[in-house]
Amino acid sequence: MADQNALESKPAQSIPERPKEETPAAAAAAGGDGAEGDKGPSKNALKKAAKEKEKAEKAAKRAAAEAARKTAQESEDVSKEDYGELPMIGSTEYVPSGIPRVNLAEIAEQYKDTTSMDEAGGPDVCFRAVVDNARNQSAKLSFLVFRQGMATIQSVVAASDKLSRQMVKFAGGIPAESVVLVHGLVKKTPEPVKSATISQLEIHVKKLYIVAKADSQLPMQVEDAERAIPVEGEEEKEDASGRPNVTLNTRLNNRVIDLRGKHNRAIFAIKDGVVALFSEFLRNNGFIGIQTPKLLGSPSEGGANIFQVTYFATKAFLAQSPQLYKQMLIAARFESVFEVGPIFRAENSNTARHLTEFTGLDLETTFDEDYHEVVELLERLMLFIFNGLKTRYKAETDLVRSIYHVDEFKLPEAGKVPRIPFREGIQMLRDDGVEIGDYDDLSTPDEKRLGALVLEKYGSDFYVLDEFPLNIRPFYTMPAHTSPAHPKNAGKPNDSPLGINAGYSNSYDFFMRGQEILSGAQRIHDAKFLEKRMKECVTPVDPTSDGLRDYVNAFRYGCPPHAGGGIGLERIVMLWLGLPNVRLASLFPRDPSRLMP
Amino acid sequence: MADQNALESKPAQSIPERPKEETPAAAAAAGGDGAEGDKGPSKNALKKAAKEKEKAEKAAKRAAAEAARKTAQESEDVSKEDYGELPMIGSTEYVPSGIPRVNLAEIAEQYKDTTSMDEAGGPDVCFRAVVDNARNQSAKLSFLVFRQGMATIQSVVAASDKLSRQMVKFAGGIPAESVVLVHGLVKKTPEPVKSATISQLEIHVKKLYIVAKADSQLPMQVEDAERAIPVEGEEEKEDASGRPNVTLNTRLNNRVIDLRGKHNRAIFAIKDGVVALFSEFLRNNGFIGIQTPKLLGSPSEGGANIFQVTYFATKAFLAQSPQLYKQMLIAARFESVFEVGPIFRAENSNTARHLTEFTGLDLETTFDEDYHEVVELLERLMLFIFNGLKTRYKAETDLVRSIYHVDEFKLPEAGKVPRIPFREGIQMLRDDGVEIGDYDDLSTPDEKRLGALVLEKYGSDFYVLDEFPLNIRPFYTMPAHTSPAHPKNAGKPNDSPLGINAGYSNSYDFFMRGQEILSGAQRIHDAKFLEKRMKECVTPVDPTSDGLRDYVNAFRYGCPPHAGGGIGLERIVMLWLGLPNVRLASLFPRDPSRLMP
Repeated sequence: MADQNALESKPAQSIPERPKEETPAAAAAAGGDGAEGDKGPSKNALKKAAKEKEKAEKAAKRAAAEAARKTAQESEDVSKEDYGELPMIGSTEYVPSGIPRVNLAEIAEQYKDTTSMDEAGGPDVCFRAVVDNARNQSAKLSFLVFRQGMATIQSVVAASDKLSRQMVKFAGGIPAESVVLVHGLVKKTPEPVKSATISQLEIHVKKLYIVAKADSQLPMQVEDAERAIPVEGEEEKEDASGRPNVTLNTRLNNRVIDLRGKHNRAIFAIKDGVVALFSEFLRNNGFIGIQTPKLLGSPSEGGANIFQVTYFATKAFLAQSPQLYKQMLIAARFESVFEVGPIFRAENSNTARHLTEFTGLDLETTFDEDYHEVVELLERLMLFIFNGLKTRYKAETDLVRSIYHVDEFKLPEAGKVPRIPFREGIQMLRDDGVEIGDYDDLSTPDEKRLGALVLEKYGSDFYVLDEFPLNIRPFYTMPAHTSPAHPKNAGKPNDSPLGINAGYSNSYDFFMRGQEILSGAQRIHDAKFLEKRMKECVTPVDPTSDGLRDYVNAFRYGCPPHAGGGIGLERIVMLWLGLPNVRLASLFPRDPSRLMP
Repeated sequence: MADQNALESKPAQSIPERPKEETPAAAAAAGGDGAEGDKGPSKNALKKAAKEKEKAEKAAKRAAAEAARKTAQESEDVSKEDYGELPMIGSTEYVPSGIPRVNLAEIAEQYKDTTSMDEAGGPDVCFRAVVDNARNQSAKLSFLVFRQGMATIQSVVAASDKLSRQMVKFAGGIPAESVVLVHGLVKKTPEPVKSATISQLEIHVKKLYIVAKADSQLPMQVEDAERAIPVEGEEEKEDASGRPNVTLNTRLNNRVIDLRGKHNRAIFAIKDGVVALFSEFLRNNGFIGIQTPKLLGSPSEGGANIFQVTYFATKAFLAQSPQLYKQMLIAARFESVFEVGPIFRAENSNTARHLTEFTGLDLETTFDEDYHEVVELLERLMLFIFNGLKTRYKAETDLVRSIYHVDEFKLPEAGKVPRIPFREGIQMLRDDGVEIGDYDDLSTPDEKRLGALVLEKYGSDFYVLDEFPLNIRPFYTMPAHTSPAHPKNAGKPNDSPLGINAGYSNSYDFFMRGQEILSGAQRIHDAKFLEKRMKECVTPVDPTSDGLRDYVNAFRYGCPPHAGGGIGLERIVMLWLGLPNVRLASLFPRDPSRLMP
C-alpha cells in the first residue's frame, strides 16, 4: 500500500463560510429569555455566559464547516461516476460497457513469479467478484476482500484527488456476499496476505459497482459454513475461534448460502469428477450410457420401500434401481450398459448414511465364462476413479480434508485389490472375537470392523467381499459355482452334500473405509431357473406378476450370462473425503423429514 | 464352400444285416391267411405276391439299413463332444475352457485386404454370437448366420469324417436368437455374401454349443423390427417384401426383441453420443455436472402437469425440470452448471412428440453483460453436438436414415447459426400468408412452416428464434432490454411508449427441422423484481408459497445475472434421424397409456 502516505498528506478541505442559522446554544448565549434579563447578570454568570458563547461559537463553526464540506463534496464528488449500484443487467437502463472481465486465478498465475512490480503497479483489470467482507478503516480508506470461485484477493479503496471519500465510504459499506464489478490496478503486496488465497497480489480499486446487492442480514454466514458440522450433542457449543457451531439442519435450511463455502464447491467438483471418470472409463471400455424409466407400472423388486405416484387415472411407482431394465437391455443385445440417474428408496431411516433420493452409478455387462471377469473390470473401474480423484482433484480433496480431518485414502499396492471370500471375512471377524453365523448378513458395525481388519492386514481402504450367502441376496442372483472342476473352486472345502460353495452365490460387495459402496452379482440369465429361484427365495416373488412378467420373458429369447453392480455416488464422495454425513454429498438432500429446499 | 464336393464323395454307409422282424407285407407274401390257402393261388395272384414280396423285401432292407445306420451313428457320433447345450454358465456343472473369444468385426478388419486365403483357410477362432437364422440345407449341410453386435457373418456346418450328420442337424435346428459359442475356421468366400455385413469371410464350424437357447416361437421377429414403423392407418398392410407391418405398439410391447434390431442399437448409440458430446463440451467450458432433486416438497413451476407422490405421511411432487434448482446453484456461486436427468410431465397428450418421462439436458450459466453471450455458447454447444454426430456416429446415422428416409440435416454455412428475432419470424409467416398476432405463441404447424421458410432462406435446418413475447414465457424470464442505448437495440423501432422491445423478453428457442429442441432465457436475478413479476405475470404465482420461498430468497443474497436452457434429449435424436415418433428415441417410453414394460 505504497500510496497510503501520499493520501495522508493531501491538502485539507477549504474553510467554509459561516452558516446563516445559529445553533441553539449560541442563541441562548446571545440573549437568553426575557425573564432573567431584567435582573442583570452576576459576574460569575457573565463569565460563564462568555465561556459558553465562546464554546457555542466554536461548535457552530465546526458544525457549519462540516455541513459546508458535505455540500461542497456532494457537488464536487470526483468519483460519482465510478461507484454505485448498476441498473439490473439485461433489462431496463443497463447499457453494456463491452469491457472484458478477467479471471483472478489466471492473473495470479500470470504474476506468480514476478518478485517486484514498479511503483505504477501491474495491469488495469476489470472483473466481477463477490464481496467476501468489506470494512471502513478510516474516512479515507476501506479494505475489501473479493472472491471469485475458490480464489480470494485483498483490495484497497483509498481516497485521493481522483477518488472521493464518499466512494471510500460506499465501498466499506457494501454488504458481504454482494456481487460487484471492479475496475482496479493489480499491485504486488509488500507482505504475503495470509487471509486471501491470492497472497502476493492486491487490487487498488478505481471503480466499484454493485451488480447484485445482498441483504445486509443473512440467515447464516458463509464463513460459518466453511467449518465442519458439529458432532452430535455439541451443536450448542462455540468452536475454538468463538464462532457459532452451525448445525447441519440450519445449513441445509439455508443451503444456497451454505453451498457458497469453498469446501462445498470442492465436494461437488469431486462428485462431478466421479461421474466424469465413471463415464469415461466405461465408454472407453465399450459401454453405452442408457436412461431407463423411473416411472414403473408395478413394483418389481419385492414391493417394499417403494414410492407410489398418482398417474392420471391409475398409479405408478418410482424405480428403486435400474436393475431389471439394465438386464433387459443385456437381453436386448446391448452387451455393456451403464446409467447415471436418480434412485428412490422409501426407507424410513434417519441415519447419517441414508437418503430417500440419491444418484446411482449402475452398470451391467456380459462375460464369457466367469463372473470374476466382471469383478476384475469393476475393480479397475474403481481404481481408475480413485486415481483420477488423486491426480485431477487433489486441491479439492485437500481442501475438504483440511476441514473434515480424515486419513489419506489408502489404495492397495500395485493395484491388487484385496478380494476376500465371504467365508474368509466371517473367519477374520470370528478370530477378532465377533460371534457370527456362516450365512449371516454383516451388520454395519461388523462391516466397519472387517474394514479395519482388512486395512490392517492388506494396507488398503478399498476391498472386495466376494461370494455372499445366496439367501441374503435378491432373487435374481446366480447361485455359486458348485463344480469341483471349476478353477475358482480349487482347494475349497467340499463340506456340503450339495457341493462346493453350496449356499453361496456369485455376488460381491465393494467397500471403502469399511462401508459398502457397490453391490453386485452375476444375474440369472435363464427364464426357467429364474422362475424357480423367484419362488424358492427367502422373500418369494411372483414371476407372472405385472411388474416381473416382461422381465422374466426377456430371458426366454436367448440372453448371455451377465453381471453388474450398482454404486452409490454420494457414498463414494462421502467416504473418499471422510464426511461425517451422506447429506453433505447431496446438493439438496432428501430424507424422510426433508423435502426442502 | 470348397469342401462341399468332397463331402458328396464320402463312402456310403456299410450295408447292415437283415433284420429279424419281417414287415407286414413280407409276411403276407410268404403265406397269407389260411382261408385263401386252401384254394391255391392263381398265377396272377402268385405273380402279384412275388412282386409284392420283392417290394416288401426291398422296403424291409431299406428300413433295416436305415435303422441300423442310425444305431451305428448314435453309438459312433464322432462329434458328440463338439455340440449341444452347455451347462448354465456361472453355476452348476459349467467348467470354464479358458479359450479367448474373438470379435468378428475385428477379424473382418484384420482380413479386409486379404484377397485370397489358401485351401486351409484362415485362423481357428472361438467366439460367442447370436443365431440370426439357421437352416438345414441337406442331411450333410447346414447354413447359419451369426450376429455379434452390428456384424453378421455366414457360416457352414458340413458333415465330414470329423463332423457328424447329427451335429449338422442340431446346428440347422437351433432356434433363431439363441446365444451360441462357436469354434471354427475363418475362410474367404468365393463371392461376397450380400446378406451378411461381413461379406468377404465365412466360418466353417468345428464346434457349436448353445449358451442360452431362445424359445422357438418369438412374439415378433427381429427382422421385422428392422423396418420403419407403419404410417398411421397402414398398420394392416404388408410391406413390399411381403413381411408384416409390425405396429409401434406391438414393438413397444415386445421391446426386448424390438431393441435387437440393428437400427435400434444405432439410435441408442447416437443418443448416448449426444449425452457424451453435451457433457464433454460443457465440462471443457468450465461447467460442473449436478444432480438436483426429483422429489419436491411442493409444486413450484405453476402446479399444473405435475405428478404427485405419496411420501411417508405427507406428499411430494416429481420435478418438471431442474429450473429452480439450477438457478439456486447459480445463486450458490456455482457459476456454470449442467444436468442430465429425467424430466416428468403429467401432460395427458398422446401425440408423436410427447412423453411423460424424458431426459432433460439442462444448463445454466452466468454472463457478464448480455444474455446473447449465453445464446452464442448454446449455439456453439449444439454445433459441437451436430458435428460430433456427423463424424463420430456417421455409420449409425446412415443406418437409421436408410430405414427412416430423411434428408441430410443441413447445418448453417461457416457455423453461423441463423438467429431470428421473434418479430421477424412473425413477419416471415405473415409474408407467407399466415394470420398471426405480434405477441401470439406459435402453433406446431406455424413452427414447422417457419422452419421450412428459414431452411429456404438460410439453408439451415438449425436456427434460433430470439426475443419471445414476455407473456408467453414463464414468470422467471427477464423482460427485454429496453434501453435505446443498448447495442442490441440499434435500429429497432421504438414503437411502444414503454420503450424499445417492450412486451418482449430475453428468451429464445432453438429449432431442428422446424421443431423446438431447446427453450431458454435470461432469468430474473433480483428478488424484488422477481416477486413483482410473479404477481403480475399471466398465470400469477405466490412468492411466499412453500415451493417458491427458498427460490425467491436465493436472490436476496447477491446473485449474478444468468441465463440457460433446457434441451429435450429424445427430441434431438428424433429430429437428427428424422424418426416419425419420439417414442422410438426412448428405450422404454412412458406416455399416459404406457407404463410397461
